[in-house]
Order: sequence, then structure tokens, then C-alpha cells
Amino acid sequence: MSADVIPLRRKEQPSLDPLLALTANGMNSVNAIILDRMQSEIPLIPTLAGHLISGGGKRMRPMLTLSSAALLEYEGDRHHKLAASVEFIHTATLLHDDVVDGSDLRRGKKPANLIFGNPASVLVGDFLFSRSFELMVEDGSLKVLKILSNASAVIAAGEVDQLTAQRQIETSEERYLGIIGAKTAALFAAACRIAAVVAERAEAEEQALDAYGRNLGIAFQLVDDAIDYDSSADEMGKGRGDDFREGKMTLPVILAYARGDEAERAFWKDAIAGRRTSDEDLAEAVRLIEKHDAVEATRERARHFAQRAIDAIGGFRQNAARDAMEEAALFAVSRRF
Amino acid sequence: MSADVIPLRRKEQPSLDPLLALTANGMNSVNAIILDRMQSEIPLIPTLAGHLISGGGKRMRPMLTLSSAALLEYEGDRHHKLAASVEFIHTATLLHDDVVDGSDLRRGKKPANLIFGNPASVLVGDFLFSRSFELMVEDGSLKVLKILSNASAVIAAGEVDQLTAQRQIETSEERYLGIIGAKTAALFAAACRIAAVVAERAEAEEQALDAYGRNLGIAFQLVDDAIDYDSSADEMGKGRGDDFREGKMTLPVILAYARGDEAERAFWKDAIAGRRTSDEDLAEAVRLIEKHDAVEATRERARHFAQRAIDAIGGFRQNAARDAMEEAALFAVSRRF
Repeated sequence: MSADVIPLRRKEQPSLDPLLALTANGMNSVNAIILDRMQSEIPLIPTLAGHLISGGGKRMRPMLTLSSAALLEYEGDRHHKLAASVEFIHTATLLHDDVVDGSDLRRGKKPANLIFGNPASVLVGDFLFSRSFELMVEDGSLKVLKILSNASAVIAAGEVDQLTAQRQIETSEERYLGIIGAKTAALFAAACRIAAVVAERAEAEEQALDAYGRNLGIAFQLVDDAIDYDSSADEMGKGRGDDFREGKMTLPVILAYARGDEAERAFWKDAIAGRRTSDEDLAEAVRLIEKHDAVEATRERARHFAQRAIDAIGGFRQNAARDAMEEAALFAVSRRF
Repeated sequence: MSADVIPLRRKEQPSLDPLLALTANGMNSVNAIILDRMQSEIPLIPTLAGHLISGGGKRMRPMLTLSSAALLEYEGDRHHKLAASVEFIHTATLLHDDVVDGSDLRRGKKPANLIFGNPASVLVGDFLFSRSFELMVEDGSLKVLKILSNASAVIAAGEVDQLTAQRQIETSEERYLGIIGAKTAALFAAACRIAAVVAERAEAEEQALDAYGRNLGIAFQLVDDAIDYDSSADEMGKGRGDDFREGKMTLPVILAYARGDEAERAFWKDAIAGRRTSDEDLAEAVRLIEKHDAVEATRERARHFAQRAIDAIGGFRQNAARDAMEEAALFAVSRRF
């Protein structure tokens, strides 16, 4: 619970506020484009898309496109349309994920597929995905199109890989990192990288922003996965224990399994295979993960990637954007919800 | 049953053979690209994609890209990659359609989602969709990207519209034509149109090929929808009566409802609402559709659009491609399976 967190001085409790402040004006434009382009003559499309898009997500990815552009002191506005395009890809992915996961809560809200049905979620996802490419085509950069179409293919392949790893207790940390690198980090990386393309910067700067986004994405996902088993974390957010009941192999489980004795491994095999999914089983899972410090170890891995993200942009001139992006990385790994 | 069809002279029994012969060489290249680009390190992706891609579809859309290029006497090979891209969009759509429809047969085969599950079908569809854009980006024509990203958005919106019209007995012929124009004809139109872009032809020729594909697509879909209620049609192909049980509003139903008396309309209301789905109910539906000549009326509408397709390419020089495309339109409306 949040009451457990001792309030620290501002510097030691990193927040997203600088990133939010830095991108506030730009995000107004991005949000206007998102609202405009999710419209359709078919009423169900804006209804369903609006449910998700207004659903309180942080819009991290478009904010990263904007902050990366600010880091490069880019003066134009091409990146607004492209940031909207990135958010559409993300929204399409979320809609399809809900169908794939069958989870009954997303950020504590009923997911779209349970309100509107799987068919509508699949099809509106396809629509938003197509719209995202229409936006890129309007911008007209083949390089951006290449980056984002590649990221989309990598995301989909990563999701299929995650599906294949589901209920497979033998999944390794390496494979897990490959999966989250694809399903989460690829779009973070692309969101940052396209700012360098728009600003017409050299390949090395593209790569630096790509590395920032990629490492930040991995850090975010690691912390998300840690929170799902963190007994001290806020109860808000996505349905606690979803990963457990779905038999998803995330790092806390991988580490607790690797560090466990024979009896514990037998428990994990049963649980991940879907034979132990009760509240008591979840409590036992949380206990074993705590016993082996697997949440803290996962957070430690996340801090490693957050540090790599910060160092990746170390070559850019220090400005408000770099400050905000550094603090966003620290925020990512200090989150408890 | 096919035994009912009296064999006629070749000219009067149009076939796809000329189109198949015209595009045979090109389709070898296209198929090689398809096989190459559906590969992935994640084994489930080529397995699932291969199930569908090798599943015996006619590959009408890439054949149309190839024949359109031949009509224009285009000598290059850029259209091979783009034809593969079109087929990937189509395959992605089929994978998602199966999830949306929940049908248990496709062309008489078990659909991918029943073998591999809905999650895999959704995600591999997303992968193929992304791959299709990667192929377009490699080709590098923003005009082609615009045509195909727009077609993709139109298809998805059409599918959502169809979903909204499902089980709605009051769906009009106009709305139905709008739905099939989007969900089927838009990709036929785009498949033909991009050949003119690659061959660098004037806007008027682009539009002519677009019109050919669009009208052909509508004709194809009308005949597909007629066959689902045609007591004299072959029993092969997709599960007979699927449309009926799913409460899909297709033209045979729209016409039989419009032409029916009060008792018949009461039957249709119940049936389309999902309250009458037995084999006897299906037999009654077929009887009413026969009574009002609604299959034949649907085929007559299809012939109208096939004729418009043929006339749309009337301005091009008569060559083997034009012959084949004309016969393909006649074939589309003479199919009984």
C-alpha cells in the first residue's frame, strides 16, 4: 500500500512531472490529432477507441517522441502526427492484448473486449493500426515508415513468443528479456528514434535515442512485472495476480523458480501449468517470491536498464528535455503501482 | 450439386484458367516472396501462417495485381513484392475474420483459430499485417503505401460495420453494398490500382483499374453470399448456412425479407435475431429465398457489377491480360461453389 512509502525529498522520489510539463503543449496537439483520426462513420469505432484512449493511460510513448524532439531542439511539428501514430499502434496492441489475455481488469478498469466483445476489439484494433500507417504516409518519411512497420512486426512476433512461453516453467531469463524487448521495448525505442529522423540527425543520434527508449521500455516492463507480485505495492492498477493466473513467465517467477528448492519448484510447475490458481495459491506464490527476494531482484535488473537508458543520452547537451528523460527513467524504476 | 450444371461450350462456361495461365510465372515469384516473408524465429508464426497461406485459396488479389500490370504491359518486377503485400493483408484479415465469426469451417477446412486458438490467430494476423507494410516500405512508393494503408482502414471499418449490422433485420441493400464495398471490394480495387502506380500511368488509368477491381470484388462477394443459400450450388466450400446461423444480413436475406409477407417477415426476424438456427430453420430460409428468387436476384446484381468491371477496362488495348480479366469477371458470377 502507498502508506508504506515514506515520503522523501523531491529529488529522491523521482516523478513524471518534468516530462509531463515539458510535453504538455505538444501533447495538446497530439491529443487533438488522436481525437480527430479515431473518428469514423461507423459509430462503434470512436466509441470503442475512445473508451481506451480516454482511459487514463499515461501516453508515455507519444511523450517520449515529443521529449526526444525537444532533446534535439527540433523546431517543427511533424512529430505531432507521428506521436499520434505511435499511440495508435500502442492502442491497437492493447485492444488485441485484451482479447489474447482474457484479463478482466486493465488499470483497474473493465477492458474494452468485455464491454464491446472480442470481435469489435479485434476489428477496431485493426482500424487504429491502419490509421497509424495512414498518418505516417501523410508525413511522408519512408525512414519513419520503415522504423514503425518494423517495430510493429517485432511487437507482434514478441507477443506470439510470449504466448508460446505461457505456462512453460522452463522459460529462461534470456528468453523473457527477448520477449519484453520485442513486445514492449521495440515501440519505446521507435517512439524515440523517429524524433531523430524528423530532426534529420545523424545515425549515431538515432541509435542513442533508440537505446534510450529500448532500455527504458525494458525497465518499465520489468517493474510492471515486479509489481504484479509485490506485496508492498499499491493495489490499484491492473488486476493483481493476472500474470500468475494466466501462467505468464515473468522475471519474479523465473527467479523464484531458479532459486527455489524441490518442493517450491513442484509448486511453481503446478501453478504455471494452471493447476493452482486460487487466492491461496497466489498468496503462496507471493510468499515464495518474497522469500527469494525475486521482486527486489527484478527491480534491481530494472535499475540496470534505467541506468543504461540514462547513459545512452549522455552525449546530448543537457537541457530540460534531457533532465526530464533522465528523471522519467528513475521514475520508471521507483514506481510502486 | 454440380451435376445439375449442364456442361456448356468453353466460351459459355467462363473459367479462371486464362488468368491463372497469364499470371503463372509471376505468381511463382510472388509465392516465393510470401514463403520467405512469413518466416520468423518464432516457430508458431510460419506454422500458422502456412496453414492459411497453403490452404488452397485462389490468391485472386495478387493475381489481379499481376494481370493489371500485364494489361499495362509493365516490364519490371516491383509488383511481385507488392502483390505479396496485398496477399498478406488479405491473410491477416482472414485470420481475424475467423476469430470474429467463430465459424467452424473455412473452404471446408477447420479455420486456424480452432486449431491454434484465438490468441495466436489475432497475433499472427498482426504480424502478417506489419510484414505487408514492411514489404511496401521496401518498395518505397508512398503512393502505394497510401493506397494500401487507406484500403486497410476501409476494410477494418467495413468489418466493424458488418458486425454492427449483424442480427439487424432492418439492414438495407444500400448499407449491405457499403459493407461489402469496404470489407471485400476495397482490397480488390487497391490490388489492381497499385499496378498502375508501379507502371507510372496517369490518374485516369489508375481509376479505371480501381473501378475494375472494386466492381469485381462486389460481384465476387455477392455470389459468395448467394451460394450460401443456393440449394443448387455445390456443397463444398465454406460451411453452408454459416451466414444464416451468424445472423449476417446478406442480400438474399435482405431481398427475401423485403419481398416476404407478414408471416415470413416474422420468421426472418426470429431467425436473424438468433432464435431459429436449426437445420429445419435453415431449410425454411432456403425455401423462402427460393420462393422469392432471391438467389437469382443476387446473382443478377452480381452480373451488373461484373459488367461494370469489364467496361471499366474497356479503354485499354485488347491483349491477353484484358481477355483474362474479362473472363475472370464472367467467372466470378457463374461460380456455383
